[in-house]
Formats: sequence, structure tokens, C-alpha cells
Amino acid sequence: MLGFLYVLSGKIRFFSVSSNAKEITIFTISDKESCLISTSCILSNIKADVVLEFMEDSSVFILPNKIFETLTHSNESIMRFNLSLVSKRLKQAFDTINDVTFKSLKNRVIKFLLSNAKNNRVEASQESIANNIGSAREAVTRVIKELKTQGLIETNRNEIVLKSRLYELGKDIES
Amino acid sequence: MLGFLYVLSGKIRFFSVSSNAKEITIFTISDKESCLISTSCILSNIKADVVLEFMEDSSVFILPNKIFETLTHSNESIMRFNLSLVSKRLKQAFDTINDVTFKSLKNRVIKFLLSNAKNNRVEASQESIANNIGSAREAVTRVIKELKTQGLIETNRNEIVLKSRLYELGKDIES
Repeated sequence: MLGFLYVLSGKIRFFSVSSNAKEITIFTISDKESCLISTSCILSNIKADVVLEFMEDSSVFILPNKIFETLTHSNESIMRFNLSLVSKRLKQAFDTINDVTFKSLKNRVIKFLLSNAKNNRVEASQESIANNIGSAREAVTRVIKELKTQGLIETNRNEIVLKSRLYELGKDIES
Repeated sequence: MLGFLYVLSGKIRFFSVSSNAKEITIFTISDKESCLISTSCILSNIKADVVLEFMEDSSVFILPNKIFETLTHSNESIMRFNLSLVSKRLKQAFDTINDVTFKSLKNRVIKFLLSNAKNNRVEASQESIANNIGSAREAVTRVIKELKTQGLIETNRNEIVLKSRLYELGKDIES
């Protein structure tokens, strides 16, 4: 497996896949963020379950497992950094659990759109939105239609344009 | 907040609560397991979201935050232990995400029953099962009825008796 991964630029999605090919995004990391993907003794029990996908052209720095492990065990600051990193990912996993369990599908779609917008645009098929939030394409299509009727978004081919009212609505969802 | 928590005996549930009082169990820990509940700089971003519930009479050892933090920063083994611990909880959070997203409600109820049985008995109301797995009581009642019809369980007042066929079914679910 990889070891220590640092994102110089771009965006990477970490997700789980079910036996029937359904997906759920656990977290995404982007510019200057890092993640441990390790088969070392320390993290042996979190391997294998997570798949990586580069969401855009990305440039990453990878430190192989063995080297990273040696560094970790010889340097207290690095170990403290690791602990902080794994804690952060744990917090993100908690957030995902809360989203999946408590948030309506509509709010999850809105959250996805807001956190993946660039210049008020999201380039993603309804299929990929569904995969990201662990839902079915048909259900996402229904929500997208509703958001469109409410004037919160516009849709082009594989592109969704966010209107300012969606951002206002987003603030209420987060709080 | 607590600090470092070690379970001498008993069982503790860590769960999230939504704004409309819906619950989801993130993980449970029992005999000889430990968990960090910390507001320290290291774990500052995972505080507050999780609530603890003692599922049975428990005996726990708690090391206050300040002391545990000092120990951690002065002892490499303890820091390594922490890292391993947080990683383990991260793995459990991943499992919860997969369960909630991918498993049918029936399979989630079966998994709950199997992992909470003592002498083939689970003492839990349908309300509390629903809270544990992040579902609605009505939906759980429907599943319990189905399991009963299929001869997989028997129900008494606030007690569910598991039959051997449920354990067989459980093996298939896990694999």
C-alpha cells in the first residue's frame, strides 16, 4: 500500500465500495492536506476498505510505508502529527455518519454541490453525485429536478450551476 | 471533558444525536478496551459530537485530560498506543458508515442482535434498537416481526431470544 500521502495540488476522494458496487465517500482531501494509507502495524486494521480516486488532475507526494514508519518511530513530532491527522479523519468519518444517518437526501445533495463547486459550477454527473453520497442515481435525479424547479440551480450537460439562493440555503443546513 | 477512558468491566456506547433527537451508535467498547475523549489540542476537533451511554453496570478507569496529555507528550510508547487506538476507532467508524450506507435494515438489526446477545438473549426495547442503528422504531418493529415469522427469534417483554438459525444467517451477513 501507499504509506504517507501529501496533496501538493488537486483533490482526492477516499471511498468505500459495497459488494454490489454501491459507493460512499468517506472524505476528500485537497491542497496541502495529507493522509495515511498504511499497512503498517499501527494502521493495519484500516487498510483495504478504502479506495482512492483522483477527482481532478492532482500532484501528490508519497512517502513509502517503511520510510514513514521509521520516521514515525524515531521522531515524536511526526508521531504527534500522525495522531492529529488520524483524529481529523476520525472527525470527518463521524461527520459522514451523521450526514448519512440524519440528513435528508436533499440536504446531502446540497452539501455535496456546495463543497464541490468551482466558480459556482459543479462538473459531475448525477451518477457520480449518487456514488459520492451513497445514494441511488434515481433518487439524486429527483432531488436535482426539485432544486431546479425551486430556482436553486441550473443544469447543463454534466454541469450544474449553483445560484446564490442555494448558498443561502446551505448556511441553514450547516448550522 | 473526560480524557482517557479504560473499561474495567461493562459496556459503553458512543453515539451521535441529531437535532431532532435521532441517534446513531458510532461504536461500543467493553471489557479491557479504551477510548480517548479529549479536548486536548490533539483531539480538539472530535469533541462534543459524541455522547456516552453505559449499556450495563460498568466499572471504568479515567485518566484526566491534563495528566494523559503530559504522559503522551513525554512517552513515545503511549503516543504510539494512542495512534493505534484512534486508528482502531477510525476503522470502526468506517464500518459504521458501510453498515448504514450499504446494509439493509434487516441485516443491521441482525448484526445488532448478534453483537449484543448474552446467553442468546438481547435485553433491548425496539425503540433502543432503532436508536442504536440510526433507524425509526416503526421500521425496526417491522423487521423484528419478520424475523419472528421466519423463526429466527422469539420475543418476550423487552427481551429477544435468538435462535441458532439467526447465528447461521449472521455468518453470511458478515462475510
